[in-house]
Amino acid sequence: MEPRPLDQRRTDTLHRLDHDEDVWVATADAAGTPYLVPLSFLWDGETLLISTVATSPTARNLRAGGRVRLTAGPTRDVVLIEGTAEPAGDLTAELGDAFAVKTGFDPRTLRNYEYFRIRPQRIQAWREANELAGRDLMVGGEWRV
Amino acid sequence: MEPRPLDQRRTDTLHRLDHDEDVWVATADAAGTPYLVPLSFLWDGETLLISTVATSPTARNLRAGGRVRLTAGPTRDVVLIEGTAEPAGDLTAELGDAFAVKTGFDPRTLRNYEYFRIRPQRIQAWREANELAGRDLMVGGEWRV
Repeated sequence: MEPRPLDQRRTDTLHRLDHDEDVWVATADAAGTPYLVPLSFLWDGETLLISTVATSPTARNLRAGGRVRLTAGPTRDVVLIEGTAEPAGDLTAELGDAFAVKTGFDPRTLRNYEYFRIRPQRIQAWREANELAGRDLMVGGEWRV
Repeated sequence: MEPRPLDQRRTDTLHRLDHDEDVWVATADAAGTPYLVPLSFLWDGETLLISTVATSPTARNLRAGGRVRLTAGPTRDVVLIEGTAEPAGDLTAELGDAFAVKTGFDPRTLRNYEYFRIRPQRIQAWREANELAGRDLMVGGEWRV
């Protein structure tokens, strides 16, 4: 398989962000303890919206440090995102509805759930070893293509 | 779908550890910066053997803290492992060969690669929400089933 050009990788990555159900979300506490869980998400074209119990390790780590690394898709069709997270507060009714439709659960109806917005700073995408070169699609928050 | 009993989950989990090509490996540095990469692995029945470049963030984090969280499989058939890692040093010829056959690459022939051995302390497995109860298959390094 020929390596995909950058614009194709960007198209494939955006398709995955629009359609995938979950991402694996890696965070860490200040002592360096890693945490990793699968979470549903909504991509709004620029950021990922997630929601989790406010007392969970993921929520605590995101509030404290805001550093996050996450992945969509299988290990042989990698989409890897490094980003910053911040509490999203209350959503507009429209956005809350969109989140519930996409993810199949509505945190507004659940006790003690919190939304977070993740802004990608770096996005990488590769399938096989021949795609490791040119895997950076976004650097410093800017698309390279 | 009925929730799987514990012994079935253990069987399914061991099958995945024997046959899956990669795991997503989450580590963190002492400042709480999370890191996440896909790596090939060999399961020996009790530990996972991985290998990565000695200067990579994953290798640095594993040497410094030894805390790791990793996942095999898709987000709707979760196998989640929390464990401790230590440098595996030089492998026996037999184990080195087994690693190369399983993963398709041989770190012994590459410059500056290091092996690490990951010992699971906790293993969880679930597919749908109805399997969240009873997801702990191993706690404190001991199988519960």
